[in-house]
Amino acid sequence: MLILMQKNATKEQIDAVCRRIVEIGYQPHQIPGSMRVAIGITGNEGAVSTEHFMQPEGVADCVPVSNAYKLVSREVKPEPTIVRVGDVSIGDGHLQIIAGPCSVESKDQIFRTAEVVAKSGSKMLRGGAFKPRTSPYAFQGMKQDGLRLLEQVREAFGLKIVTEVKDSETLDEVAEVADVIQIGARNMQNFSLLEACGRLRKPVLLKRGMMATLKELFMAAEYLLSLGNYDVILCERGIRSFETMTRNTFDISAIPLIKRHTHLPVVADPSHGVGISWAVPAMAKASGVAGADAVMVEVHPQPDHALSDGQQSLTLAEYEKLAKQMNELAAWRGKSN
Amino acid sequence: MLILMQKNATKEQIDAVCRRIVEIGYQPHQIPGSMRVAIGITGNEGAVSTEHFMQPEGVADCVPVSNAYKLVSREVKPEPTIVRVGDVSIGDGHLQIIAGPCSVESKDQIFRTAEVVAKSGSKMLRGGAFKPRTSPYAFQGMKQDGLRLLEQVREAFGLKIVTEVKDSETLDEVAEVADVIQIGARNMQNFSLLEACGRLRKPVLLKRGMMATLKELFMAAEYLLSLGNYDVILCERGIRSFETMTRNTFDISAIPLIKRHTHLPVVADPSHGVGISWAVPAMAKASGVAGADAVMVEVHPQPDHALSDGQQSLTLAEYEKLAKQMNELAAWRGKSN
Amino acid sequence: MLILMQKNATKEQIDAVCRRIVEIGYQPHQIPGSMRVAIGITGNEGAVSTEHFMQPEGVADCVPVSNAYKLVSREVKPEPTIVRVGDVSIGDGHLQIIAGPCSVESKDQIFRTAEVVAKSGSKMLRGGAFKPRTSPYAFQGMKQDGLRLLEQVREAFGLKIVTEVKDSETLDEVAEVADVIQIGARNMQNFSLLEACGRLRKPVLLKRGMMATLKELFMAAEYLLSLGNYDVILCERGIRSFETMTRNTFDISAIPLIKRHTHLPVVADPSHGVGISWAVPAMAKASGVAGADAVMVEVHPQPDHALSDGQQSLTLAEYEKLAKQMNELAAWRGKSN
Amino acid sequence: MLILMQKNATKEQIDAVCRRIVEIGYQPHQIPGSMRVAIGITGNEGAVSTEHFMQPEGVADCVPVSNAYKLVSREVKPEPTIVRVGDVSIGDGHLQIIAGPCSVESKDQIFRTAEVVAKSGSKMLRGGAFKPRTSPYAFQGMKQDGLRLLEQVREAFGLKIVTEVKDSETLDEVAEVADVIQIGARNMQNFSLLEACGRLRKPVLLKRGMMATLKELFMAAEYLLSLGNYDVILCERGIRSFETMTRNTFDISAIPLIKRHTHLPVVADPSHGVGISWAVPAMAKASGVAGADAVMVEVHPQPDHALSDGQQSLTLAEYEKLAKQMNELAAWRGKSN
Repeated sequence: MLILMQKNATKEQIDAVCRRIVEIGYQPHQIPGSMRVAIGITGNEGAVSTEHFMQPEGVADCVPVSNAYKLVSREVKPEPTIVRVGDVSIGDGHLQIIAGPCSVESKDQIFRTAEVVAKSGSKMLRGGAFKPRTSPYAFQGMKQDGLRLLEQVREAFGLKIVTEVKDSETLDEVAEVADVIQIGARNMQNFSLLEACGRLRKPVLLKRGMMATLKELFMAAEYLLSLGNYDVILCERGIRSFETMTRNTFDISAIPLIKRHTHLPVVADPSHGVGISWAVPAMAKASGVAGADAVMVEVHPQPDHALSDGQQSLTLAEYEKLAKQMNELAAWRGKSN
Repeated sequence: MLILMQKNATKEQIDAVCRRIVEIGYQPHQIPGSMRVAIGITGNEGAVSTEHFMQPEGVADCVPVSNAYKLVSREVKPEPTIVRVGDVSIGDGHLQIIAGPCSVESKDQIFRTAEVVAKSGSKMLRGGAFKPRTSPYAFQGMKQDGLRLLEQVREAFGLKIVTEVKDSETLDEVAEVADVIQIGARNMQNFSLLEACGRLRKPVLLKRGMMATLKELFMAAEYLLSLGNYDVILCERGIRSFETMTRNTFDISAIPLIKRHTHLPVVADPSHGVGISWAVPAMAKASGVAGADAVMVEVHPQPDHALSDGQQSLTLAEYEKLAKQMNELAAWRGKSN
Repeated sequence: MLILMQKNATKEQIDAVCRRIVEIGYQPHQIPGSMRVAIGITGNEGAVSTEHFMQPEGVADCVPVSNAYKLVSREVKPEPTIVRVGDVSIGDGHLQIIAGPCSVESKDQIFRTAEVVAKSGSKMLRGGAFKPRTSPYAFQGMKQDGLRLLEQVREAFGLKIVTEVKDSETLDEVAEVADVIQIGARNMQNFSLLEACGRLRKPVLLKRGMMATLKELFMAAEYLLSLGNYDVILCERGIRSFETMTRNTFDISAIPLIKRHTHLPVVADPSHGVGISWAVPAMAKASGVAGADAVMVEVHPQPDHALSDGQQSLTLAEYEKLAKQMNELAAWRGKSN
Repeated sequence: MLILMQKNATKEQIDAVCRRIVEIGYQPHQIPGSMRVAIGITGNEGAVSTEHFMQPEGVADCVPVSNAYKLVSREVKPEPTIVRVGDVSIGDGHLQIIAGPCSVESKDQIFRTAEVVAKSGSKMLRGGAFKPRTSPYAFQGMKQDGLRLLEQVREAFGLKIVTEVKDSETLDEVAEVADVIQIGARNMQNFSLLEACGRLRKPVLLKRGMMATLKELFMAAEYLLSLGNYDVILCERGIRSFETMTRNTFDISAIPLIKRHTHLPVVADPSHGVGISWAVPAMAKASGVAGADAVMVEVHPQPDHALSDGQQSLTLAEYEKLAKQMNELAAWRGKSN
């Protein structure tokens, strides 16, 4: 960390800051500047908290230098992580498609969807059984019955199941069915749930919170890795901005940034990213070209009858067209570098 | 809800939307306009989900008309709710001060703080035992030992205890000690925790998420009320914007808006709102004048030695000065209307 | 417009609103709902201002139904606009590349760049002579000398020139040199400059302000079209959000949305969108696949010696590689629909 | 500035950065850290642009240390600036009220308003003659006729006139009438207009752009001061966030921050800040208590007939009540420190 002293800071104030640095076990380094003195800190192994230095008299600002995240960082592990989900790999250079409805609603709905998803060449099915909802009056998912249907559909079509965990209480039953456990945007900083998932030995798909910086996403992943779960996939699903014409602002630039700063694979979710079904294919293709390891899209046999997220779900026909285009782009991407 | 058809929508498309409205149990009302047809929906008891109508051909937009929140609404209950915490009331027109450290760190720290808080005339002490932290490497609170100190300090000074619950697992032990259970900003949409707190019969202080609209805050409170816990206090603690000079953007306008749209009392937390100790007194006074029922501020005997939030904590002397000013403003506010 | 009355609005309040609607020349239509009365307005030709109806007693909310933009709307003109810049077309389905330095800095710099841009197959060169800068102490552009160099480089390589106008005072001299006049993000709502450019008969590239909603962008374009300049190209260049790891948040979803709601062509500027040179190629390719009519990228022979925007400029070699990939993607896009 | 090298940066890369620093005229200072090398720069008089150092191999990040603003900084001029508008002072510790309609609409309207404003004890009248509007179809102000009415009303009531300049073309005629020239939020980074106003010797009220950080506001003011106009008043009027229940998010914390970092007086505009008339009094009082030197509020004899901003305008009676309360708070503030 670098502590910037005020222009008119006195020698006594500078000395007091240096003493405080020694007191907490580090070494201070005075750096005289043309306008003000800066004090560098060394001897620390991780990031030093700015909290110790915002109060003393004469301090203008504290600038963190080291990153607070360690295990997720590319500086620590330069080679990319490949997450294995049975015989499917995420992060090995291929472009996977994860598709399915927002919620599991009925046997007919999930089987009809899965059939098309499998036929299109995709290997992973998404579908929620426990649904976090803004309103207590909204459909909360089929819960245990939904999990049973996911087991059946996996058996029938051989697809890997990606499904969301809503809370620690239901983690065990979800983990029994899921091939990949999804942590939703609103749970990205549910630290107790992160800790529980960190103790599992099962892949986790961690969604970026709608108001989370990338650094906060990396820190949330650090909770998982620090407890020994290294099979972590990060997911961009749109952030909140002032624009209201889309449900969220889909930050596609997160894809190259995540891959540069961490070694973890990255999934893009254009369905939540824009929230408008007709805009999803353009965003899915853009995500693939931007370097995503997988794209996750919502598909429903009858979007206008969906119990959740209908406005952003593709029809089966729209999905088939998109899957074909994604495969063409994946082939191009594989050759282009 | 109002469904806006596209300018060039055909009669068939309009009829299809009307049939769909009847299908889900409501009545459609065509409203011919100069530029387009709009279709109103009646017969619903609460809000109708826009999800059913974003997909059909010819629809341009869906505009929610009814609010999705009911029990928290002033339209449903015009008189303000007063939350009783023993012999202390929040929401009765008086201006309470809730003060204390971010985290309980030691007996000496919490007792020294409580002594000053009590002497200043405040009746409520804040202090965290279980701390949600962005980094897994940061101080996570004294946990059970912290709860024990809170019990002792309550006994010693007669202050009501406001302390945060981090997860459902530790809710019972926190609820045993707390006079008011705080749900933190990152847990505002932790729906399982909301449900657990909704089943308690103990006051809950619900903080607005840093990414939450006021409507989402109201919906989160609706989870609590719909399960029978009516003793809910809402808390503005700053939202996230593009400005980085403050920790958050402290949305003081939330105070009159919450009081207009709901019947619940509102607390302002300027310490998190700005995150800079020297700016806290100005923001605390502004919140009081803007109509807050209580102000919550962080105080620490030695802010530059605090294990969390030191940069936004007042010293004991700063706190005493602020408490005196707040009491003067409260007296003025009581007379001015 | 739709006026929503409060739940408990009296008949007198409803009547007063209806009288006011008649008073300003429109017809009121009462729509009884299960929870409240709504009042529709007809008889208006464009949007009705909400300002007339927010004050009266008993009004809960005003919901605009008609869009305020007309001439830019796809509902008014369903076929896409093709902007002709000499023999180059923007908006005809092809994917153009506009490349060049942020600022014209010297003859050597602009000629070296133009040579590579022309050789790569691009037909348009960007480069600023008058530079709006956040700091009064920063390089403000070569001004008239820069315009002279742009004339020379056009002559030498046959490239079309895209250059920014900073103010009305210098519009005439810029317009004399420019093939396309660029209005920068900070000038998107400089209405006097928009009016001056609306009276020109020369293509205008209008950049979205960093805090402008798409509707505001459309209204800014409406200024141009309403004064008779129909050769308008809209440009997404990143918006401001809470994320600080990128210079802006590049809203690629704006591309399909602009094309759906307006008939104007759209250009993507990933250089400003992310502000980090190594992330520009991924974002440029994503924009092309998402449907942009052109992509604009910053290129400099020596980015680390650039007088502005060096951190987001590609080297000549990086640009050549990107241009080749863009052409491949353009070919794919042409075939895929 | 401080340049942070990557963890694995080679000695050659570090040396190359140091050579580049010398090349542009400064001195490099290597600071070895536990995780990475940092390089400090000295010898510069103002801020060093990060642009020179983002490109070289091995650089992880550049951290500006000096502020880019100089003349507006409190570090340069510790005593507060008092702007004199005839016999009225802004910034001397008193709390002024600037009141009036958004736009001048008629003689009757402006005279009726001015009479109440003067009677309440306020000394400054606001009112726009040239109005920047989002839509080309909206009322654009009475222009020259509005200026004439402002002259008459000043004569009649002795109030100082605050009125907005829309563009450089009309600056001279506006400056002839205005006692304080207002630069609107959308023009905060209209650098040509800032330069023109910087050359005037007349007070300027500079509004923060809805997308502007405080640092950008300070840089915009720097344009004015660097050209010799030191009579600059900064104005907080709300910034844009994700919250849509208010027109803007009124950032009251800007008041203490502006006063801490600059020596300029600060005005708060709660009318634009929240955009809802019933919430304006609470926000005005909060601004006054937070330390504003003046509060600017919109008042109209008939808000529901206003041609602009009616929904956020107080009635004359509401204004009189507010003015009385503001004066009481000002008296309290004067005594409380």
